[in-house]
Amino acid sequence: GAPARDIDRTCIDTIRTLSMDAVQKANSGHPGTAMALAPVAYTLWQDALSYDPADPLWPARDRFVLSVGHASMLLYSLIHLSGIRDVVDGKVVGAPSLTIDDLKQFRQIGSKTPGHPEYHHTAGVETTTGPLGQGCANSVGMAIAQKWLAARFDKPGFPLFDYHVYTLCGDGDMMEGVASEAASTAGHLKLGNLTWIYDSNRISIEGSTDIAFTEDVAKRFDAYGWQVLVLKDANDTAGFLKLLEQAKAETTRPTFILVHSVIAWGAPKKAGTAAAHGEPLGADEIKATKAFYGASEQDFFVPEGVEKHFQDGLGARGAAASKKWKELFAEYKKAYPDEAAEIELILARKLPEGWDSEIPTYKTDAKGVASRQSSGEVLNAVAAKLPWLIGGAADLAPSTKTLIKDGGAFQPAEWNGSYAGRNLHFGVREHAMGAIVNGIALAGVRPYGAGFLIFSDYMKPPIRLASLMGLPSIFVFTHDSIGVGEDGPTHQPIEQLVQLRATPGVIVLRPGDANEVAEAWRTLIPLTNRPAVLALSRQNLPTLDREKYASASGVQKGAYVLADSGKTPAVILIATGSELQLAVEAYEKLIADGVAARVVSMPSWELFEEQPQSYRDEVLPPAVKGRVAIEAASPIGWHRYVGDAGTFIGMNGFGASAPLPELLKKFGFTVDAVIAAARKQAGL
Amino acid sequence: GAPARDIDRTCIDTIRTLSMDAVQKANSGHPGTAMALAPVAYTLWQDALSYDPADPLWPARDRFVLSVGHASMLLYSLIHLSGIRDVVDGKVVGAPSLTIDDLKQFRQIGSKTPGHPEYHHTAGVETTTGPLGQGCANSVGMAIAQKWLAARFDKPGFPLFDYHVYTLCGDGDMMEGVASEAASTAGHLKLGNLTWIYDSNRISIEGSTDIAFTEDVAKRFDAYGWQVLVLKDANDTAGFLKLLEQAKAETTRPTFILVHSVIAWGAPKKAGTAAAHGEPLGADEIKATKAFYGASEQDFFVPEGVEKHFQDGLGARGAAASKKWKELFAEYKKAYPDEAAEIELILARKLPEGWDSEIPTYKTDAKGVASRQSSGEVLNAVAAKLPWLIGGAADLAPSTKTLIKDGGAFQPAEWNGSYAGRNLHFGVREHAMGAIVNGIALAGVRPYGAGFLIFSDYMKPPIRLASLMGLPSIFVFTHDSIGVGEDGPTHQPIEQLVQLRATPGVIVLRPGDANEVAEAWRTLIPLTNRPAVLALSRQNLPTLDREKYASASGVQKGAYVLADSGKTPAVILIATGSELQLAVEAYEKLIADGVAARVVSMPSWELFEEQPQSYRDEVLPPAVKGRVAIEAASPIGWHRYVGDAGTFIGMNGFGASAPLPELLKKFGFTVDAVIAAARKQAGL
Repeated sequence: GAPARDIDRTCIDTIRTLSMDAVQKANSGHPGTAMALAPVAYTLWQDALSYDPADPLWPARDRFVLSVGHASMLLYSLIHLSGIRDVVDGKVVGAPSLTIDDLKQFRQIGSKTPGHPEYHHTAGVETTTGPLGQGCANSVGMAIAQKWLAARFDKPGFPLFDYHVYTLCGDGDMMEGVASEAASTAGHLKLGNLTWIYDSNRISIEGSTDIAFTEDVAKRFDAYGWQVLVLKDANDTAGFLKLLEQAKAETTRPTFILVHSVIAWGAPKKAGTAAAHGEPLGADEIKATKAFYGASEQDFFVPEGVEKHFQDGLGARGAAASKKWKELFAEYKKAYPDEAAEIELILARKLPEGWDSEIPTYKTDAKGVASRQSSGEVLNAVAAKLPWLIGGAADLAPSTKTLIKDGGAFQPAEWNGSYAGRNLHFGVREHAMGAIVNGIALAGVRPYGAGFLIFSDYMKPPIRLASLMGLPSIFVFTHDSIGVGEDGPTHQPIEQLVQLRATPGVIVLRPGDANEVAEAWRTLIPLTNRPAVLALSRQNLPTLDREKYASASGVQKGAYVLADSGKTPAVILIATGSELQLAVEAYEKLIADGVAARVVSMPSWELFEEQPQSYRDEVLPPAVKGRVAIEAASPIGWHRYVGDAGTFIGMNGFGASAPLPELLKKFGFTVDAVIAAARKQAGL
Repeated sequence: GAPARDIDRTCIDTIRTLSMDAVQKANSGHPGTAMALAPVAYTLWQDALSYDPADPLWPARDRFVLSVGHASMLLYSLIHLSGIRDVVDGKVVGAPSLTIDDLKQFRQIGSKTPGHPEYHHTAGVETTTGPLGQGCANSVGMAIAQKWLAARFDKPGFPLFDYHVYTLCGDGDMMEGVASEAASTAGHLKLGNLTWIYDSNRISIEGSTDIAFTEDVAKRFDAYGWQVLVLKDANDTAGFLKLLEQAKAETTRPTFILVHSVIAWGAPKKAGTAAAHGEPLGADEIKATKAFYGASEQDFFVPEGVEKHFQDGLGARGAAASKKWKELFAEYKKAYPDEAAEIELILARKLPEGWDSEIPTYKTDAKGVASRQSSGEVLNAVAAKLPWLIGGAADLAPSTKTLIKDGGAFQPAEWNGSYAGRNLHFGVREHAMGAIVNGIALAGVRPYGAGFLIFSDYMKPPIRLASLMGLPSIFVFTHDSIGVGEDGPTHQPIEQLVQLRATPGVIVLRPGDANEVAEAWRTLIPLTNRPAVLALSRQNLPTLDREKYASASGVQKGAYVLADSGKTPAVILIATGSELQLAVEAYEKLIADGVAARVVSMPSWELFEEQPQSYRDEVLPPAVKGRVAIEAASPIGWHRYVGDAGTFIGMNGFGASAPLPELLKKFGFTVDAVIAAARKQAGL
């Protein structure tokens, strides 16, 4: 039942009517969930959330994640009504984030109110949601970041990082495996700073959840080690506030609040139906619903007193808390100048001076070192100078070489670690790892996640979202080809490189020797607004003689001339990663035979494409048509670099289980094969 | 504690020693889990499994899934010791599937014993496993197929399809989201024919599972609605057999047996350690372990009596059951010849005559129809003639148009359906859907799974495995571009087409109008050994005039000349899917202006690449360098078709949230843009 009509109820109904109206005007969108959850979201924001609308960047703000991203109008309405200010070029400005006109532009071209909430696009949106389960897992990353920041920076009398993360999720989130993985992780890590509010409306797109989803969700979360609370009626705001207090009071476990709701509550015909999920209610139903609420019929109407009420509640509380925090931080800065300086760098996504000063240079070595191994060394050299670089693997750290030595494990005390630990143990949960890494990045802490390249398939959605959000998440993928050897085709990536390269904004780096690995890290660490993927070998790669060949600093340009005969090339050999050695060996034999060859090392397509045309033409002169590219992966995409006349040595199907030398022979990755192709290209 | 030394114990220890020896000889592999689970797997096979080693294709055999694929030697040892016969070209032959020499070739080039078990490669392997969680979800598909086959074909006195599916899984499986999704689905569907045996050894690659995985797994499965049983000691074979009986006796719920085990049980130094997971034990440790077992020191030694014991147990029981079944089926064939004929077609992966007789032909229609809509119509036309085509969507059926009309819902009676239903409701569980679809395909039933193309990202691993296994799984993906419109960039695929095209073996079809949709289905349904992906539009596509333009039957060749000026082309316009209409409209204006243009419709790169060079040169004459390709997706891969001189109109970044007409303008998908590019290409 609905509470008595008062200002709270007016605020709640205004969220509802704005949501209905915007979806109707756009003739597209999801009204039902916003209407059902308005009392829940309102109570959370107005009576619990520590958030200063005047400073949406305040670092110690509570985080609100709308994992049910399709209910975007719920969030947009709250942003508008609570008067959150806009952020331009990373700075808070006086103008509001969303005006009523912005709400009227819902889902229109160039608007600040896209169909699903987009981080960095609309101030007040903490993460991009829509693909279900991602927000849930992001929120675990945010909660990890809070714990880590507090453990590193809080001092007696200085509770700088003391915020809570709230996530609104739905049946779809609960069905997605990524949310299950994230929930298990949060329970294990005893994240008492995290609360998920689960909207159980028993309706999904195909109809009642009885058709597919009849498990006992509350019991499942109990099994994960969460505190489980239940709200019988989403409209019971007083009851909900008590549960929020219980959630805050429980600091040793995350809290799961199961809320029973009715989708499109108040709509006489469509409440409780799948029809209210993903389409406008229609003018008649809106009129009838507004009548039921006792609200004005006027479109996009905000009754007097609503905005003031938000200012007096959320606004006043947030302003006071944020003011107090800023004073506290000013004191902290005096008492702990070094730590304060670190915090400022973190929040500005800047690097400490000399962050790369310990990155090693590798000596020429024919036997060489696996690029996963040199990467582990470089990672540690960077980690020594960049204290907020934290990360881990999906239960593969000994293989991915991604452990930060002496970094400690990020664990609750119960599991013999500390929240100051820098090594995360994600378990065999690649998908959640990716989304957790993104959640950590949202706090400014620099995260990496690691695994085998083949398992990037399990975590493609968060890699894509990292790019869409402009996050500098780092993904370290080893065992990057048939170099995997005996584990066989289930573990040998073929199409993974091209699928990551095709993902807009992602920088893929596949370095060819230890010095290229060092340069790859030197290139990716300064990134501030896009994710990077490292593709690394399981097997040893010779360390090239950099006095004889060009400097590995060319990595920064994506591709560079590693070796050249000095004459106009008759053939250009292009290679990446573990295949670079084949190109170099073939080159040596070719020039010994008087063939004017060139080797182009091409660790990153994306960086190369961003160079001026003149540089690209210098590296790959358009007049030189004789080209051979070598990469133990899918041929798709290579035509661009070898051209109509060129050829490619790669993988045209799945790999096989065998020791690597056998596989190289079987699939044609031999110096002889490269030479033969090169001679043919050179017309010899 | 170990049971007294007897023939059972000898069999168990032989599995262990073969596994240790093979990993040692290969100097690569995972001995620990095989050693720990030998008593469990042995008891299941020897005393419970209904399986005839002389006929590994017997349709009513119980299924054994090794979801812990890294423990492949456990399965290979069982296949060898139980004398499973080989299958060649789909027929059982007299030779054994695996000889002792095959075990000695573990993980070697061309061997029948690759690192992870591969379906179709080794008789006795029911599904390809290794990527964790997949086997679990496959087994849910197998259990669904059994329920469906029984509901459709069993008659009073003819329990033809009455088998159980057993899955051996580990901590890694339990952590993977795909297994959580599958478990929730199996609980909902009340699959009483399914038993998962969970090896809880508390060890993962990074160390104790205490570092990442401390949830109460048993309680979680209880929450999913499973019967949960616990075995305190993996060596307690008598106790385990009782639990297997309880599992069989519970026919209204799936059963979860949690087995406490010690990894590498019996190895004096490495038992219970992460070191025993993924590397050989070493010669000394093997010697000591064999001494502990009281086994011979000899490598690959099979004591006398072991094979005979298997023959007397599993073998005799299986032979009797399989013989009885074949007699039963002979009787069934007399009583129900039509049904029997259907079963034979299913098992042979053949189609009924006239399966495509109701596929519609579409009339020219400028307004047209969305390809998801025409696909829904064609799917229904096929479904009417192909009764074992079953499938569903990840809670998107009303949008993907994949409901089989009057097909009924596949549900337990409790949820108001029947196991004879043809419409599966997967819930918002894309990843499990993909793996369940593969599990269904393994039984010969023809499955499809549907969703939005963007969410193919959530289910890439099973799409890849469908191809690796040679399964004709069908994946129907709609909302295949920025045509999604208002839902925005989180929902607009960009790189998904190229990543699916790059996956070896997968056939991607993106039809351009309703008649191409019909031809796409006509092309993909006869596939027997590779998966197909359909990419379909949300928005209407004009139905082209097929009297004026070429027949849509060209779809079968992947690309075809749709329209041509008759002269040597000055420019070729290549397009797929929703962009085909742009090419056609531009073509009309170009030829009206006297430009010798050609339109090539290219729904499938893969099919086109499989045509003879002569056909490919006919469609895309190498001498014609003026080319424009148009596809609202990543440019990567298109260079191959437009060549060095050509150009591509596509998406160079993420999409945006807006009504489609605005997006088409914003991103340059206009007839004018195509004409301008074409004229430039034609040198005009």
